[in-house]
Amino acid sequence: MITPSVSLGGGRRPIGVFDSGIGGLTVAAAIRKLLPAEHIIYIGDTARVPYGGKSAGTVERYGIEIGRMLLEEDAKVIVVACNTASALAVPRMKEIFSVPVLGVIQPGAEAAISRTRNGRVGIMGTRATIASRAYEEAIQRLAPGVRVASAACPLLVPLIEEGLFEDPITDQILARYLAPLRDQGVDTLVLGCTHYPLAGQAIARAAGEGIVLVDSAENCAQAVRSLLDDARLEAPVGSPGGLDVSLTDATEGFLRLAERNLGIEIGEVRLRAMPKETAP
Amino acid sequence: MITPSVSLGGGRRPIGVFDSGIGGLTVAAAIRKLLPAEHIIYIGDTARVPYGGKSAGTVERYGIEIGRMLLEEDAKVIVVACNTASALAVPRMKEIFSVPVLGVIQPGAEAAISRTRNGRVGIMGTRATIASRAYEEAIQRLAPGVRVASAACPLLVPLIEEGLFEDPITDQILARYLAPLRDQGVDTLVLGCTHYPLAGQAIARAAGEGIVLVDSAENCAQAVRSLLDDARLEAPVGSPGGLDVSLTDATEGFLRLAERNLGIEIGEVRLRAMPKETAP
Repeated sequence: MITPSVSLGGGRRPIGVFDSGIGGLTVAAAIRKLLPAEHIIYIGDTARVPYGGKSAGTVERYGIEIGRMLLEEDAKVIVVACNTASALAVPRMKEIFSVPVLGVIQPGAEAAISRTRNGRVGIMGTRATIASRAYEEAIQRLAPGVRVASAACPLLVPLIEEGLFEDPITDQILARYLAPLRDQGVDTLVLGCTHYPLAGQAIARAAGEGIVLVDSAENCAQAVRSLLDDARLEAPVGSPGGLDVSLTDATEGFLRLAERNLGIEIGEVRLRAMPKETAP
Repeated sequence: MITPSVSLGGGRRPIGVFDSGIGGLTVAAAIRKLLPAEHIIYIGDTARVPYGGKSAGTVERYGIEIGRMLLEEDAKVIVVACNTASALAVPRMKEIFSVPVLGVIQPGAEAAISRTRNGRVGIMGTRATIASRAYEEAIQRLAPGVRVASAACPLLVPLIEEGLFEDPITDQILARYLAPLRDQGVDTLVLGCTHYPLAGQAIARAAGEGIVLVDSAENCAQAVRSLLDDARLEAPVGSPGGLDVSLTDATEGFLRLAERNLGIEIGEVRLRAMPKETAP
């Protein structure tokens, strides 16, 4: 069991948030908005981004390494704001860390179930997330009658990282990816990657009218609030709150893009030492 | 100075080839064809791929780490079959390794100069390669009169890794990337990323008639032959030769795609322990 080395009193400790890159800032932004008194420490593993095409074992190892870095910052909870790492690393992280570990899959699955009217849910995600079947399994556990159709969207993250939110090429690629989900008659579509909300309007157009988009960021923020509430770990009312962003490699471009599009103040970004690697 | 720990007689030692992923197999294939008696050890750093959007310091560190792994295999020469790592890591690798280190930039620059008729050369590459200005500088040193126009093509590697060599979307993206180079009147175009030859036909169509494509793989193989010849490090005539492929993360999909499209027998792929990370 891995525990923090130093510890402040419960509520004053930060919320640790991590993502393979900076897409998880969509989750950090949702937590900031919902819980303004909380201090958030965000680590983006930009030195090894993207996780979406990598193997389960490698993603699990990366999740544990970044989780350790957050524990060293005395995080009171670890939020895995990356669907790929939520699918592949959270089960093991829950076993070995002493603080609660929260992924985006479970909140997204719950939201999709509550939103669908016809019982047909679509999932968009990276290759690794879709191959893991994590959303299907979470939905089947909670609502065995709901039918799930999935689409791996491997080019969507690169397109978003290039800032092509509104571009005919993005529209064409989305039309291809979403055609099978439309054919299945889904009425609810889970944005199963923290990058995707940045292209939300293009995704909504491609999905077609009447399809509800479920953004894992907002649902994850709600789950963080419930967790802190249950565990009595909320920051004291009136605390100033804040957001510290650290990256394992300095890549400014997309960070500024995210800042403009998320409407959050990111401020100074710290470059961190990479965690020590362990054998696969 | 970092030296191999064990050493066979000169020519029998392998050629070490590395790339961030498996695009560098285009270089390994060219070396196999030109120098069939040589044994090649290839390492693809798929656990941290891609390098093309990462910072100079991080790419340099990765290059040194993988170079060390090749030296542990008693490599007689290290071929950096990745344009990004050639641009950002080779200078430092040359300083610290005891064996010759050869990148793809210099051979590509030489070939472009020898092929251009109007003295206008275009370079396609990743963001990191283009930002480094490594091709411009290499060309200016050798032929100050040649004019160079560059185009960062960040979506091309993801498209190729998805196997979209022949696809209207790839054609549209190439048309955008290459328009400024066409406007500059280049008659020679350097494929400044080892992935690009796999989409060579689409690139040729987008570049237009009369534009010569320079493939860094073939030119790099020629440079390896000259280097081994000068240093008297060739494998004995009639040696069987071969190719061992190791990856830092097991990702089979694109490997099989490369095998089909390069016409080389890759065979068994070994999964290697990641090198120990050091601070940035």
